[in-house]
Amino acid sequence: MARHSNGESVFSRVARIFEGFDPEHSALTVSELSERTGIPLPSTSRMVTEMIEYGWLCRDADKRVRLGMRIWELVARAAPVNEVRAAALPVMTELLGRVGQPVRLSVRAGREALCVERLGAPGAVRDATTVGGRAPLQASAPGLVLLAHAPADLRESVLSERLPRNPEDAVTDRNTLRRLLSEIRSTGLAHYPGTTLAVPVRAAGGRTVAALSVVLPDAGLIRPVVPPLRAAGARLSRALGDGAPARGLPDTLTA
Amino acid sequence: MARHSNGESVFSRVARIFEGFDPEHSALTVSELSERTGIPLPSTSRMVTEMIEYGWLCRDADKRVRLGMRIWELVARAAPVNEVRAAALPVMTELLGRVGQPVRLSVRAGREALCVERLGAPGAVRDATTVGGRAPLQASAPGLVLLAHAPADLRESVLSERLPRNPEDAVTDRNTLRRLLSEIRSTGLAHYPGTTLAVPVRAAGGRTVAALSVVLPDAGLIRPVVPPLRAAGARLSRALGDGAPARGLPDTLTA
Repeated sequence: MARHSNGESVFSRVARIFEGFDPEHSALTVSELSERTGIPLPSTSRMVTEMIEYGWLCRDADKRVRLGMRIWELVARAAPVNEVRAAALPVMTELLGRVGQPVRLSVRAGREALCVERLGAPGAVRDATTVGGRAPLQASAPGLVLLAHAPADLRESVLSERLPRNPEDAVTDRNTLRRLLSEIRSTGLAHYPGTTLAVPVRAAGGRTVAALSVVLPDAGLIRPVVPPLRAAGARLSRALGDGAPARGLPDTLTA
Repeated sequence: MARHSNGESVFSRVARIFEGFDPEHSALTVSELSERTGIPLPSTSRMVTEMIEYGWLCRDADKRVRLGMRIWELVARAAPVNEVRAAALPVMTELLGRVGQPVRLSVRAGREALCVERLGAPGAVRDATTVGGRAPLQASAPGLVLLAHAPADLRESVLSERLPRNPEDAVTDRNTLRRLLSEIRSTGLAHYPGTTLAVPVRAAGGRTVAALSVVLPDAGLIRPVVPPLRAAGARLSRALGDGAPARGLPDTLTA
């Protein structure tokens, strides 16, 4: 693709513009965007103008720049998560109705769990995870489910790293983590850390493509929530072709 | 931004690549993508390679190209519809639980209604509208709600056009449409065409930012569904600041 005099491709600058926005920075002035991306102000300004023309960015009432509706629409109508989300939403809705606590769907993105959908309920425990939010695989129940079923080489590579020491984490050594992952594979349930419960979601060929989880306000609710959560995971897995020969969902969902 | 020898900007080619994907074409070979975008095959191939590096595109098990998880994530975490969606999902979930039929949230995108969320239920009537799907404003109940509350100049411009003649449409002349829009503004409800019901969703300043709708299997259900639909629309409007002075949501949501 065309390159700037410094050898950087034009596309990489488009990508940097988009990387400049996140949940805490969903509206930025052109100067802030230039500062966050490291792209000189005049170039940032020209790019923003063109991207606004195409609806990939827009200006709000305060003249700040935001992502535009057109790129949202382009991505929404052909997103790699659409199939899983479409199958999951009715199941998640029913599960939310039964347990009355936030329900979340996550997929693996490299070494992190990526939340692709969440349903909350008024009055339920606050679940800080937003759609599009990420966490290291070993740092949450859905992440542990995804790690437990990840390819062996990725699992070993995570296990061989120094584990981040979060004082609230029970898992601070790799033998405990290894045992925990093996337990999750045999029980089909993760209930660590704290009061988040997660089960695997499988597609054709028995491949784990996502984790379905519920965030509970206290440990007393774990016991009654396990059966409906397991049932929801099984139902969603069947909807995605679990039990059928491998095919269908792109591998890229868990790239 | 940098331009090709034919004067086309690099960004416009990136945009054309993304325009090449839609719900019926979510996986394409590089040749198909080149054909659909009109970008010569060698350039398409180079662009695809670079966009795969950044996770904006990916290859599935059949070696076809799809949208990638990274662009989905970048858009999801700062999307202009996030605020409305986050407020709407609990309300939509509860409404679905009450009426047992598909619930949809739409915003205006120019002269079309754009579906930004839908919740279906197993056993409910099939609702063909997908998230990211569009329809002309005058062709559906949510579109009519959005048109009824659109700026007067846009409304007049739509009214001055020749209306598309769909044999199933009751509205084939502009006087009927004008009367219908005025009725929707005074009753706060659209129940045309057929058995889709829609109500406006307002934000701070009383501005209509979305339409909430339910698709019914038969007209006998209209009467019992109206009260919970109205209540859900009012509740969502309050959550979005209706009743408060104007501010908050970007104008761009209904650009």
